Amino acid sequence: MNYETILVDYHDDLATITFNRVDKRNAINDQLLVEINHVMDVLEKEESNRFLVLQGQAGVFCTGMDFDQVTQDILSGHPLRFNAKDYMATLKRFNSTSKVVIAKVDGRVLAGGVGIVAACDLVFATQQAQFGLSEALWGLLPANVMPFLIRRVGYQKAYTLTLTTQNISAQTAYDIQLVDILADNLDDALQSVLKNLRRVSGNTVAEMKSFFKKMWIIDETMENAAMDELQKLIQSPMVLDNIKNFVLHQQLPWDKEK
Amino acid sequence: MNYETILVDYHDDLATITFNRVDKRNAINDQLLVEINHVMDVLEKEESNRFLVLQGQAGVFCTGMDFDQVTQDILSGHPLRFNAKDYMATLKRFNSTSKVVIAKVDGRVLAGGVGIVAACDLVFATQQAQFGLSEALWGLLPANVMPFLIRRVGYQKAYTLTLTTQNISAQTAYDIQLVDILADNLDDALQSVLKNLRRVSGNTVAEMKSFFKKMWIIDETMENAAMDELQKLIQSPMVLDNIKNFVLHQQLPWDKEK
Amino acid sequence: MNYETILVDYHDDLATITFNRVDKRNAINDQLLVEINHVMDVLEKEESNRFLVLQGQAGVFCTGMDFDQVTQDILSGHPLRFNAKDYMATLKRFNSTSKVVIAKVDGRVLAGGVGIVAACDLVFATQQAQFGLSEALWGLLPANVMPFLIRRVGYQKAYTLTLTTQNISAQTAYDIQLVDILADNLDDALQSVLKNLRRVSGNTVAEMKSFFKKMWIIDETMENAAMDELQKLIQSPMVLDNIKNFVLHQQLPWDKEK
Repeated sequence: MNYETILVDYHDDLATITFNRVDKRNAINDQLLVEINHVMDVLEKEESNRFLVLQGQAGVFCTGMDFDQVTQDILSGHPLRFNAKDYMATLKRFNSTSKVVIAKVDGRVLAGGVGIVAACDLVFATQQAQFGLSEALWGLLPANVMPFLIRRVGYQKAYTLTLTTQNISAQTAYDIQLVDILADNLDDALQSVLKNLRRVSGNTVAEMKSFFKKMWIIDETMENAAMDELQKLIQSPMVLDNIKNFVLHQQLPWDKEK
Repeated sequence: MNYETILVDYHDDLATITFNRVDKRNAINDQLLVEINHVMDVLEKEESNRFLVLQGQAGVFCTGMDFDQVTQDILSGHPLRFNAKDYMATLKRFNSTSKVVIAKVDGRVLAGGVGIVAACDLVFATQQAQFGLSEALWGLLPANVMPFLIRRVGYQKAYTLTLTTQNISAQTAYDIQLVDILADNLDDALQSVLKNLRRVSGNTVAEMKSFFKKMWIIDETMENAAMDELQKLIQSPMVLDNIKNFVLHQQLPWDKEK
Repeated sequence: MNYETILVDYHDDLATITFNRVDKRNAINDQLLVEINHVMDVLEKEESNRFLVLQGQAGVFCTGMDFDQVTQDILSGHPLRFNAKDYMATLKRFNSTSKVVIAKVDGRVLAGGVGIVAACDLVFATQQAQFGLSEALWGLLPANVMPFLIRRVGYQKAYTLTLTTQNISAQTAYDIQLVDILADNLDDALQSVLKNLRRVSGNTVAEMKSFFKKMWIIDETMENAAMDELQKLIQSPMVLDNIKNFVLHQQLPWDKEK
């Protein structure tokens, strides 16, 4: 498969997906989700591959839903190609695969990008990382992010990030446990952890993920509530207007209202 | 309505309730809960009002259940006017209203006062703030506080605070996420956060609160368990004796037992 | 009863169990669980006893399941004497007894030892303490530890400790709330906390523990899932081989595979 939205590199037991939509600040469109899942299909046939690293570029990791694509769909009358179900299914897949899924963050993470990070098994970040949930500014909510973010940072921090829409620094993200390892050189830090991780078999990783589902509160009801919420909000005329006006006229929702 | 237990100030999009029972160290009696709810009735008819700030005085925010009123009721044979249901309903209302509810804490917070703080959307505090759950000393439990405190600080810290009955400093409260923003000047700190919060619509705040209920473990069963527990304990003769002996004779339960 | 695996000391209102299998690094065998429960039987008939302290020696607190005993059972064809049910029942008992159960940790805590610590009401530790979940290295999981560890440190930290199998320092354990009080002199630190704890009656402690069960997610389904998982894994031929090869030949699972 020729990938349009990602670069893929295989090296020993480690595969690396680099988000490669630099002109779109690595926003998530339908194709990106398809391609991530395609890589995982390949990996899951390769027992010798043990690790999947997700990264962006220096400066930007992933900035969430692709508003340009949403606007194209609005203008052309095309049903929205963004689908809460595909996004949720991808995050859930990180939590059932026998591969250890690792985020390497060296820049901005926004909205749905925070969900990708939060769903990873391990999160490495540099001081250049920053994280923010901007959804509420548009009348949206980071609904599908929440099960994964709450599991990582607790209810209240996830709630406060949603409500205030403020960005937090890498250090703060580390303090609240959104980031596991904060380092200047992410490759060195990763190699040091891999040494231990290679002693745990892929079967044990898969068993672990399956077992941990029974130790926490995320269930199908919660997942469906999250998906339904996002599908509802993303179809609201006000939200679609907010997105379209921003993409076409750089008009921000809170300026419009004044 | 003429308020007996609070002062209310309206300024632009922000309403401020100041607990005003200084001689009772801002203890919670039935009237205080009625009056808070009355202010919320008023606010919820005013779409232009967006924020509700709760505060006490320098030195004391709120010290929980009004033991003087409990003692009056015991002596007069009056059914207890304190009602776990009214207290719980008030905290729950903070979590469903479209207003952003904010605690500004510049002094002591005890027992049921901790529940008020924990249920707020955002908690600002100065270094003069301190927090403690003294209930167990009286044979009571901070039952109605728990769903909200556990949601904020996690199970174990809520448990430890209950068991040890020890006060914690503002800094510790910040470290365990009972306090969101620690600042010398709470008004400046608040204004800085309000700038962002004003960009999120009231409808989105209400939608957010409704959605977040589906992302966490508090349900009707848990709320009822909490209310039933408090109603049970507050009717126990030993507890009533402990309270009465303290109010009338300044006798502490642990001195009595020796 | 003559204890083989522990030393027991009674002093005023405080009982101390010292794990006393120094040559086995205080590993948990069936007898250790029987003896802890026997002490609790005794204590629960003594209302005047209020506190139960668990400790090891300087250097080692408890290192989890006794692999030597498992290996003996494998070689002799004896059904495994280690039983997930007895282990879980002991931890659960800490959470229902009217005694305040306190861990004093001055050394290494591994695997099932971490569960004992996590289930205690209060955890005191020196800087010599360290904590690690080594199970996954053997193809096992700290299944019965998880309900108690997640309750203390949150889902993600418990997951990461399980996945990476890395030891953490006393300071890190304190930062993530596995340790409540970090001190050089544990006896002084304990006495200081006991002063407050003595003001809370045993009845209130028992009521508290019973009430807190309703405020969190551990239920019979989760407990059974944890016990079933451990029973399943500990009977897997690969795991038994890993344990046996280590005990008899000091062969580590990850060396074998290479």
